[in-house]
Amino acid sequence: MQIAMIGLGRMGANMVRRLLRNSHQCVVYDTNPKAVEELVAEGAHGATSLQDLVSKLEKPRAVWIMIPAAITDKIVQELSGLLEEGDTIIDGGNSYFRDDRRRSAALRPKGIHYLDCGTSGGVWGLERGYCMMIGGDKEAVERLDPIFKTLAPGKGTIEPTPGRNNPGGTAEDGYLHCGPSGAGHFVKMVHNGIEYGIMAAFGEGFDILSNANVSTKQAKQDAETAPAMHHDLDYDLNLAEISEVWRRGSVISSWLLDLSAAAFAGDPNLEKYSGRVSDSGEGRWTIQAAIEEAVDCEVLTSALYARFRSRKEHTMAEKVCSAMRFQFGGHLERPAGG
Amino acid sequence: MQIAMIGLGRMGANMVRRLLRNSHQCVVYDTNPKAVEELVAEGAHGATSLQDLVSKLEKPRAVWIMIPAAITDKIVQELSGLLEEGDTIIDGGNSYFRDDRRRSAALRPKGIHYLDCGTSGGVWGLERGYCMMIGGDKEAVERLDPIFKTLAPGKGTIEPTPGRNNPGGTAEDGYLHCGPSGAGHFVKMVHNGIEYGIMAAFGEGFDILSNANVSTKQAKQDAETAPAMHHDLDYDLNLAEISEVWRRGSVISSWLLDLSAAAFAGDPNLEKYSGRVSDSGEGRWTIQAAIEEAVDCEVLTSALYARFRSRKEHTMAEKVCSAMRFQFGGHLERPAGG
Amino acid sequence: MQIAMIGLGRMGANMVRRLLRNSHQCVVYDTNPKAVEELVAEGAHGATSLQDLVSKLEKPRAVWIMIPAAITDKIVQELSGLLEEGDTIIDGGNSYFRDDRRRSAALRPKGIHYLDCGTSGGVWGLERGYCMMIGGDKEAVERLDPIFKTLAPGKGTIEPTPGRNNPGGTAEDGYLHCGPSGAGHFVKMVHNGIEYGIMAAFGEGFDILSNANVSTKQAKQDAETAPAMHHDLDYDLNLAEISEVWRRGSVISSWLLDLSAAAFAGDPNLEKYSGRVSDSGEGRWTIQAAIEEAVDCEVLTSALYARFRSRKEHTMAEKVCSAMRFQFGGHLERPAGG
Amino acid sequence: MQIAMIGLGRMGANMVRRLLRNSHQCVVYDTNPKAVEELVAEGAHGATSLQDLVSKLEKPRAVWIMIPAAITDKIVQELSGLLEEGDTIIDGGNSYFRDDRRRSAALRPKGIHYLDCGTSGGVWGLERGYCMMIGGDKEAVERLDPIFKTLAPGKGTIEPTPGRNNPGGTAEDGYLHCGPSGAGHFVKMVHNGIEYGIMAAFGEGFDILSNANVSTKQAKQDAETAPAMHHDLDYDLNLAEISEVWRRGSVISSWLLDLSAAAFAGDPNLEKYSGRVSDSGEGRWTIQAAIEEAVDCEVLTSALYARFRSRKEHTMAEKVCSAMRFQFGGHLERPAGG
Repeated sequence: MQIAMIGLGRMGANMVRRLLRNSHQCVVYDTNPKAVEELVAEGAHGATSLQDLVSKLEKPRAVWIMIPAAITDKIVQELSGLLEEGDTIIDGGNSYFRDDRRRSAALRPKGIHYLDCGTSGGVWGLERGYCMMIGGDKEAVERLDPIFKTLAPGKGTIEPTPGRNNPGGTAEDGYLHCGPSGAGHFVKMVHNGIEYGIMAAFGEGFDILSNANVSTKQAKQDAETAPAMHHDLDYDLNLAEISEVWRRGSVISSWLLDLSAAAFAGDPNLEKYSGRVSDSGEGRWTIQAAIEEAVDCEVLTSALYARFRSRKEHTMAEKVCSAMRFQFGGHLERPAGG
Repeated sequence: MQIAMIGLGRMGANMVRRLLRNSHQCVVYDTNPKAVEELVAEGAHGATSLQDLVSKLEKPRAVWIMIPAAITDKIVQELSGLLEEGDTIIDGGNSYFRDDRRRSAALRPKGIHYLDCGTSGGVWGLERGYCMMIGGDKEAVERLDPIFKTLAPGKGTIEPTPGRNNPGGTAEDGYLHCGPSGAGHFVKMVHNGIEYGIMAAFGEGFDILSNANVSTKQAKQDAETAPAMHHDLDYDLNLAEISEVWRRGSVISSWLLDLSAAAFAGDPNLEKYSGRVSDSGEGRWTIQAAIEEAVDCEVLTSALYARFRSRKEHTMAEKVCSAMRFQFGGHLERPAGG
Repeated sequence: MQIAMIGLGRMGANMVRRLLRNSHQCVVYDTNPKAVEELVAEGAHGATSLQDLVSKLEKPRAVWIMIPAAITDKIVQELSGLLEEGDTIIDGGNSYFRDDRRRSAALRPKGIHYLDCGTSGGVWGLERGYCMMIGGDKEAVERLDPIFKTLAPGKGTIEPTPGRNNPGGTAEDGYLHCGPSGAGHFVKMVHNGIEYGIMAAFGEGFDILSNANVSTKQAKQDAETAPAMHHDLDYDLNLAEISEVWRRGSVISSWLLDLSAAAFAGDPNLEKYSGRVSDSGEGRWTIQAAIEEAVDCEVLTSALYARFRSRKEHTMAEKVCSAMRFQFGGHLERPAGG
Repeated sequence: MQIAMIGLGRMGANMVRRLLRNSHQCVVYDTNPKAVEELVAEGAHGATSLQDLVSKLEKPRAVWIMIPAAITDKIVQELSGLLEEGDTIIDGGNSYFRDDRRRSAALRPKGIHYLDCGTSGGVWGLERGYCMMIGGDKEAVERLDPIFKTLAPGKGTIEPTPGRNNPGGTAEDGYLHCGPSGAGHFVKMVHNGIEYGIMAAFGEGFDILSNANVSTKQAKQDAETAPAMHHDLDYDLNLAEISEVWRRGSVISSWLLDLSAAAFAGDPNLEKYSGRVSDSGEGRWTIQAAIEEAVDCEVLTSALYARFRSRKEHTMAEKVCSAMRFQFGGHLERPAGG
């Protein structure tokens, strides 16, 4: 099947490769001509502009965009002037689901389909396949099924879920039409919210393990310091080995644990990392959706907040607490390292 | 190799079966004679008392106990009077690591080894193998290696961790000598703490998905209710299909997700469950250890607290907030369902 | 000075009374004629419609609206057709600050001022005065200073803040021009966010006190229940006396504590309350603002989530945890009360 | 009445002064002779050792200790060898309630009373009085009533709680016999837990206010950064004025707010403080007690964890999240300030 790809970064380029390997025809475009050249060398058709790209497609056209959320509106706007009734735009990036609703509503009068496709897989997707959560018109989703099927991981060696009563669905192949416009990115947004939560759960657990020798470090006794009530936390634990042993048979075995084990394997104290953790939108939107729904989600929220905090040296909240302590008790801050 | 098993519940009985299938010799005891009979029928040697059990073992003896934490002290106490220098007790249950330290210290003068072995695997361990985190004397751990190796999952089909520099270790087979007495249960405790966190992350995520249709439900507008700022949360999402699609290629693929998919498969709204979630000690101890270490662990703590809250109808904290609102604003509580 | 008041509920009516007592002239309107009659009997001028109300005011007019956030847009819209250049609308309710910005921008071309005035004080404001946080044009704020000064508590018996370098400001009287349009409601929003946090802090503290006798209650020992590690929590504490003693000289003395003491005084177990705690918008908006600012605010968020949770019997998140526990461990939920 | 004071730090010395001003007789001791001299100059009787101190007291003796929790056991131990039947030790520091129970049980056979007296008031107590929460034998509490009454704030100008049905109690004077041994420190512990929560609530609120101008700061747009969905957070708010205005008539008026206002008055950005916030035991014990009681207390816990985090540059948890992000997405950490 023929498809266009706009945006040839880490994700977009590898998706093209996976499609090419499976005999699909890809027309590709990126503002960086080198990225286009590379894929042309691997069998894609290059385009020099959006107009050029659209002109190289047969109707009904399908254009997949894989670009930062911040410029998606601009590209969709431009494409809407170039595409025609029956064509389809697939936004495979991480758009906010309300932007999808707005865009699909704006394109509907022109008869242009807009699919929102949350895409998980990262740099491993080329080999492992991409898990896709799709929102939009059923008609367009069904027409593009060969593309989704190729990008998706397929059943692989993963054991079937016992008791499933929908054996014919696509979920078992790793892609799913979740609902109308926005539903795909909504589900992907929550996926990422959960991802933040799981990452934080592992992070905290490894933190507790790495401090299990706290009693062996001398601590000064003064009225400002909580006195230790036990002095037996003297375990020097090997995080690389522990993350490895949990990969087999434990309740918490998971891909994120596999990745932790890989990270610890070469760098047992993670010295390569300072610990400044970015967040890229979905975590925030997840919490905002939860608040709109009046759903309490302490864990996902804490995971997000820990990322906020990780990027700061100190917060005003902390200074206020220090200032209050000085005001009521004359407590001076202890120096760094204290 | 020969080993005794005390406690033939869900975990203990299946561990015996796994050992028997791999040609180990097992002497078994439980206060419930039927549990003993069943395993005798499968090839184990039955014992009628602790004394009988010990008498049926060759020296140096190895006695594995797999019983509720609350009665472990009593059994260890009795065994300490029956065992001899060079013998080993393995506590495979979920003891508090400080109880392990106390017990091993008490047994040391008699020359009896005490190993603490955190055992993960649940009802699936018979087929899948048990992930084991072991603390105690190196000598005893090494002597019992054949037992651990049999109970553990082994390398299986799981891909090796790229970059591992300890290819000869046992972690890749699913068991690990973590450190001195208590270290095994400490690591297992944190494992369970992480487990609580991951479970809660999934729980919250599915909660947000299940309420994605909140705008379609009529809400009364009054000064006591936060007015909705959007009216487009109209997605009826299929949690069974979503949990299934995430199993393939997504960042959050994991065994706990597999289990969620299995639960949703037969019961898409989880109507079998009221949502009262027990906690069995490790989660609490994890938080207590974190506090002793001054490690912030919001996610793991929130996961524990959500379980506490799940078992109550209402809390005093909530009543205090209601009472304050009435005092300062004359706000009356809205009736149930409002 | 003359002012109109629209909305004669608990807040609006008492504000009129406080203005009347201090010789201001009030034209009042409410959809409920009885509310109007009552205040007319106390010296206000009644109006039968918005048009009637506007016609009874001298230019430049000042109209204070004190109505639920959900109908504010409608009333502002109607007033904008009746008022003229130089007139001022004061929204004293709990509008979202972005709605203020939108409304003031819409009224600006007509020369109508729009002030957003966050108003704290509740049912006690008549006697105690109202703390006001004001956003909008400086010109309108200054013209209405006599109204704000009367509604505000004034310096009273509260000790001056040591070291204040702005003794001439209005903050010491209990009202403040915080900034341009929206700034008043933004500050009031955060005020309410803090209020949620403080209420929850007291709520949790009293909860811990009220359960300090947990060891005296029989708990069943089984593998599903965290075993108690101590059995000495046998304190039957008197929450009414404790809340009273904290009112004098303690670090946590505060008005919300005074209100707690009042609530406990007549109802030591708060049996009048079920514990279903409403939230009315500001708490949610506070968290959303914090997320936009990448400010971690665990405490304020937890306080909001506890309110969400208080209004539900069980959550999907809890059911997912129950279902996972059954799947991996065969754990059945314990019955209610267990 | 006669009483001895051991420990003449900020708290102990001022308590002696308050007692002397009200015609009590004080025998004082501190390891620092200068601290003794100072109080002797103000009318106290100095002692050169514990033995000397005890010898200067009339029976039944009363010895108040006001020292760091870490050395309390040593002093109580020494006093127990010097005191006699009918004498009383009052621990006015911040001991763990279980230590009180242990100490009182150890002293009981000798007929020595041990009272645990949680004491709130900080550096302001000399003028403002001390709020005291007392545990132990009724007999000793009643005998020492004149001491407690003098140290306590008394009724002052604080309005009586409406509806109180115990007008004869001491709570209205600011001291309370809470229950048997440990009850005083238990209540004080929870008091401090609440204090942490309220401080954090204010801290977070001021943090949100101080970042209300986030839209005016340039932010780089890339795939690693959550794109801003609004660009109108352009408020430069004056925290000193806001904290001042809230002091009058607002729902959150409180002593801790008064102290915030004082801190902001001289230092509007709190530049004197880095934000490293100590914790001195009670916060940790509060959470541990809550966990023992299965009481969820998200707010109090978050407040404690924020203090832990404030004292670190980065955590292992954060590094794990960074490492995972690199593993699955090739995401490199953004540089500081990014």
